[in-house]
Amino acid sequence: MRPFDVIVVSHGNLAEAMVDSACMICGDAEAVRTVGLHPVESPESFTERLLAAISPNRPTLILSDLYGGTPHNVAMATARRSEAIRCVSGVNLGLLLEAITADETLDDALVERLVALAREGVTELTSRAGSPS
Amino acid sequence: MRPFDVIVVSHGNLAEAMVDSACMICGDAEAVRTVGLHPVESPESFTERLLAAISPNRPTLILSDLYGGTPHNVAMATARRSEAIRCVSGVNLGLLLEAITADETLDDALVERLVALAREGVTELTSRAGSPS
Repeated sequence: MRPFDVIVVSHGNLAEAMVDSACMICGDAEAVRTVGLHPVESPESFTERLLAAISPNRPTLILSDLYGGTPHNVAMATARRSEAIRCVSGVNLGLLLEAITADETLDDALVERLVALAREGVTELTSRAGSPS
Repeated sequence: MRPFDVIVVSHGNLAEAMVDSACMICGDAEAVRTVGLHPVESPESFTERLLAAISPNRPTLILSDLYGGTPHNVAMATARRSEAIRCVSGVNLGLLLEAITADETLDDALVERLVALAREGVTELTSRAGSPS
């Protein structure tokens, strides 16, 4: 069993598509849950569906698509109800892959490492051939 | 007309889903093109489709899903053929929204600003209520 659950939340189908893309690369993302905000959905409805996706008492990492968006705001409010839930915003494919393959406890050190790796993965490529900086 | 074109490239349908999600928020992303790598597609085929999506001589920003993945590698090789093309890896929804709404010339300063904004959008939310840092 993974050391923690991963849930991706987003506007629309972005979360589901990102998990599908992760599966293309690592083939092991099927168990990751997703909750996508429908175009006319209320925050209350989205909250209900997010809560239904969370396994009680399981350490859970929620990755949200956009700081300040409804999925993010709902995730943050949900995380405040339980110390077992952590949230990171601005998910990109690199962050999702790192979260899926992490074999550590979901603690401050892991969250900081995931945030750092996701940020390092955002890089301008055109002017150089080296690794991200 | 926008000052530059935006193309999102990804594994699978991630690029298309991200643009759809951006449309949910800003309603102005329809013109953004996407090229998604199919599960069994060769880099050569993907290259052909990316080249077909680029308007010759138009400043073009390519946003790729993952540093080191095939979409990224093809985008970087393509960008090296033209100074009008810039690439940024690790796209997240915040980066796409900033790129879509940018009203500036596609130059070093803009690319640096976009990279910085995308990185700032990756943040751990759980332990504080303030803005990203």
